[in-house]
Amino acid sequence: MNRTPNIYRMTITCPDRPGLVAAVSGALFAKGANILEAQHFADRLSGTFFMRIEFQLDQPRDVLKPALDRLEAEGMRINLRCAGEPQRVLLLVSKFDHCLVDLLYRERLGEIDAHFVGIVSNHSQEVLRTWIPEHIPFHHLPVTPGTKAAQEAGIKRIVEESGADLIVLARYMQILSDDLASFLSGRCINIHHSFLPGFKGAKPYHQAHARGVKMIGATAHYVTSDLDEGPIIHQDVELVTHADLPEDMIRKGRDVERRVLARAVSDHLEQRVLIDGHRTIVFRD
Amino acid sequence: MNRTPNIYRMTITCPDRPGLVAAVSGALFAKGANILEAQHFADRLSGTFFMRIEFQLDQPRDVLKPALDRLEAEGMRINLRCAGEPQRVLLLVSKFDHCLVDLLYRERLGEIDAHFVGIVSNHSQEVLRTWIPEHIPFHHLPVTPGTKAAQEAGIKRIVEESGADLIVLARYMQILSDDLASFLSGRCINIHHSFLPGFKGAKPYHQAHARGVKMIGATAHYVTSDLDEGPIIHQDVELVTHADLPEDMIRKGRDVERRVLARAVSDHLEQRVLIDGHRTIVFRD
Amino acid sequence: MNRTPNIYRMTITCPDRPGLVAAVSGALFAKGANILEAQHFADRLSGTFFMRIEFQLDQPRDVLKPALDRLEAEGMRINLRCAGEPQRVLLLVSKFDHCLVDLLYRERLGEIDAHFVGIVSNHSQEVLRTWIPEHIPFHHLPVTPGTKAAQEAGIKRIVEESGADLIVLARYMQILSDDLASFLSGRCINIHHSFLPGFKGAKPYHQAHARGVKMIGATAHYVTSDLDEGPIIHQDVELVTHADLPEDMIRKGRDVERRVLARAVSDHLEQRVLIDGHRTIVFRD
Amino acid sequence: MNRTPNIYRMTITCPDRPGLVAAVSGALFAKGANILEAQHFADRLSGTFFMRIEFQLDQPRDVLKPALDRLEAEGMRINLRCAGEPQRVLLLVSKFDHCLVDLLYRERLGEIDAHFVGIVSNHSQEVLRTWIPEHIPFHHLPVTPGTKAAQEAGIKRIVEESGADLIVLARYMQILSDDLASFLSGRCINIHHSFLPGFKGAKPYHQAHARGVKMIGATAHYVTSDLDEGPIIHQDVELVTHADLPEDMIRKGRDVERRVLARAVSDHLEQRVLIDGHRTIVFRD
Repeated sequence: MNRTPNIYRMTITCPDRPGLVAAVSGALFAKGANILEAQHFADRLSGTFFMRIEFQLDQPRDVLKPALDRLEAEGMRINLRCAGEPQRVLLLVSKFDHCLVDLLYRERLGEIDAHFVGIVSNHSQEVLRTWIPEHIPFHHLPVTPGTKAAQEAGIKRIVEESGADLIVLARYMQILSDDLASFLSGRCINIHHSFLPGFKGAKPYHQAHARGVKMIGATAHYVTSDLDEGPIIHQDVELVTHADLPEDMIRKGRDVERRVLARAVSDHLEQRVLIDGHRTIVFRD
Repeated sequence: MNRTPNIYRMTITCPDRPGLVAAVSGALFAKGANILEAQHFADRLSGTFFMRIEFQLDQPRDVLKPALDRLEAEGMRINLRCAGEPQRVLLLVSKFDHCLVDLLYRERLGEIDAHFVGIVSNHSQEVLRTWIPEHIPFHHLPVTPGTKAAQEAGIKRIVEESGADLIVLARYMQILSDDLASFLSGRCINIHHSFLPGFKGAKPYHQAHARGVKMIGATAHYVTSDLDEGPIIHQDVELVTHADLPEDMIRKGRDVERRVLARAVSDHLEQRVLIDGHRTIVFRD
Repeated sequence: MNRTPNIYRMTITCPDRPGLVAAVSGALFAKGANILEAQHFADRLSGTFFMRIEFQLDQPRDVLKPALDRLEAEGMRINLRCAGEPQRVLLLVSKFDHCLVDLLYRERLGEIDAHFVGIVSNHSQEVLRTWIPEHIPFHHLPVTPGTKAAQEAGIKRIVEESGADLIVLARYMQILSDDLASFLSGRCINIHHSFLPGFKGAKPYHQAHARGVKMIGATAHYVTSDLDEGPIIHQDVELVTHADLPEDMIRKGRDVERRVLARAVSDHLEQRVLIDGHRTIVFRD
Repeated sequence: MNRTPNIYRMTITCPDRPGLVAAVSGALFAKGANILEAQHFADRLSGTFFMRIEFQLDQPRDVLKPALDRLEAEGMRINLRCAGEPQRVLLLVSKFDHCLVDLLYRERLGEIDAHFVGIVSNHSQEVLRTWIPEHIPFHHLPVTPGTKAAQEAGIKRIVEESGADLIVLARYMQILSDDLASFLSGRCINIHHSFLPGFKGAKPYHQAHARGVKMIGATAHYVTSDLDEGPIIHQDVELVTHADLPEDMIRKGRDVERRVLARAVSDHLEQRVLIDGHRTIVFRD
């Protein structure tokens, strides 16, 4: 993670064609940018080209504008950010705070390059019992079946007023309406448990126990209107045994959930994740 | 793995009640058996008690008979085997031989304590192309929709004539009839791929690719009439990335399949796996 | 983890001989104890027998005393604790608080069954910047080469006054004197980084980077007078790549350190770890 | 793995400077090559630039020659190979054949893109007992202290006559002379066990057992004159427990050894591994 103000990260998505790497790297080189790291991938099935570049530029960023405008005119979708300006992140949480605590802690250690602009919960801070740093605003937005629309309007307002770049559902247990899911689409990460085989319906850990699974997992994905079916960013598993009761599985599940969510958020913030239809491209180094 | 002829492995299953460990260990001690390793587990939900004991006995095994008869009369289901007499194992395979090759190799190395009594395939040895040691009989039992009943009768006959204790479906791609599945129930292990989330229908690796999963897995389980839903013995996963095409996932899948099957077979043969309804108890050391 | 007051955990260590399991389980059964879980292991090389039993007893614990006294008279070293009385744990920390934060958090979630009786640091709470729950006393014991003996005397006093059962060096970066190490021997867990291959001397992460290792690890072990050589309780690794600078390795190292330490502490507190000379026996379920 | 004859893989190593990506991708584009995959890495500490490109070229390879000559004249070290021409690999083995069997099998499955040009062993095929495909020549080169120089001369001759691109020490237990190690330097991969902590001297698994380690590992590395200290390509570990005797550790060690070696060989053959002094750069997708 590099917060130096003259380091930039850029992602590019466009239909694949010969000469793209040459065009991009040539344009950057012509303006004095020095490429530190670059990865690209051409999805042969969808015919889409994806690129991530990290470069150093010791002049004002504006010198790149004409070149980038030209590339965009040629059909490239470009996302350029300065590594010195962390993205603004809004956290949503319900009662279980293991993911929230973990993200706050990793940010403090510098493992996650975020500026947390607020925490929204449908529970009060007394219920949540999490120690929240004073500089992060806490919004208690309770919800009942009758007030759901108004509560979601409140969430939208906080997203807009806080200027959040990314919204993280850190074990936010309310089902989003299609409207809110669409509003957040592509800029919202959710975490949920996963099992081999999958289980439908309530109390999945109890079902997993009854079926005697030997592994439980977690999946972090982007939110789309199809709630638990958005593009997958990261997955991991933990071993369980016959001796693990459903509550032990839930405990082990917490560990894998927080680890998987932190990794997905961190990769997103470093612009390592690009969406490719129902899939993601994840450029790890 | 201990093949010394005076080492025994015993498993016990019965309704849980106080004093079971004392009763079993007392009975063994009274006859001069020295317990080398013992594990037990009481499933509080089903109220069933499971125990595995490895012991040394320097007298003829018959000295234990009265004591074991008494324990069985008290409701214990006992399975006693001498570590010096490897179980008889029959392997079923179709076209893909990665699991077959792996099991043959591990047996040769002494990692799997089996006596392979035969290999059955619905393909000929020419198609299979596997190098099979001369002392293992190979049975080519081709199958067509019209001959399935006769072919399965052939399998049953080989199971019986070979005296197989365990049948391993090492990527045997034919769906077993309910009748054959019942015949093999509890003494037959199957391996199949697993995904997070699960995919129904054909070409699961292509579906997994389209969905952009980051892990693929494999599950080894006992065969019951519910083909892919029998009690799970072992599971594991491999990482995949956006760059893995369906054929890459299939290749990585082979690796995890053979690893998971070998472990399940080995655990079964060392009597480490006990069936508990839809679940298994696996005593690992 | 079971805090019910009528649940007990007992460990036994003694020279191996036939009949031990029968003797122990018989003695418990005779007094109405119901064994919920039991594991034992006989180390054939050292000739030592190790056992861990979890049992339920609905009468006062004293009813067991005559039987346990008899077993002890026969040479068994017995350690019996009630699951309803969490052990008293003292935490030592220097500047890096990732392990401290993690342990505090897991205790709050109920993942670690401890009663934290204090935190000792050679740095002030201002330097440490950790949020510490009010009910846990914080002791700032600064140390200089000249005051080391006095500071260690202070640590010993806190250990005694707090009645600590376990002392955890949660990244406590001072080298313990032989005297303090002996004082804490067998009841103190330390965490340190580990590498393949190992590196001697200062700045091990920089050495690991220069050597291009692909994995870094952590080891949790009991403290003996041989500081980093005590019996190992748990180990794990994280993958690193050529792109990881020494500071990235340090960050990944934090993750594996806190995970490994938490696991070791939790296993110790549930009496799953028994010392066998330079080794440990770890009974996991 | 792509064996299509018009697919090429190219690696580039040179001192880092701005404009390298642009220069290479521009040169390829000008000749009609379509980049399918590209990765690069600039080692800030050594100031070296590394790149791997996979591209499609539908014209004869010679059209690139002038451009590549120019890049080489500018100081780039270029290694270009056609994916349709598998590299020639010579295998050296002693008595333990688990790595040999594994490599032969993976090549047959198409997991390793090699043309095996021979197997050299200091033991006869009768001792080795491995089933070796008929088309691979087997060379029995016995060695005694007195014949070591002559035997190594035999190895050199086979390396040269077979035109081997890569030599794999698949558990070849003879210590290479400095002379042979230098002769093979940079084109020879070795596998050896690794431990946390490391152990010097004979019988390392017995030492690891005595010390109670909870993990054992393996490291694949390039051979240099410093036998076990060459640049590391890949590492992995397996869990062990107190119940694993030294022989169990050796068995688990075999599993991790063959997995790690296969991965290193495969990565090398796909030109994913570049040497950077004492380190390697490994470009995985």
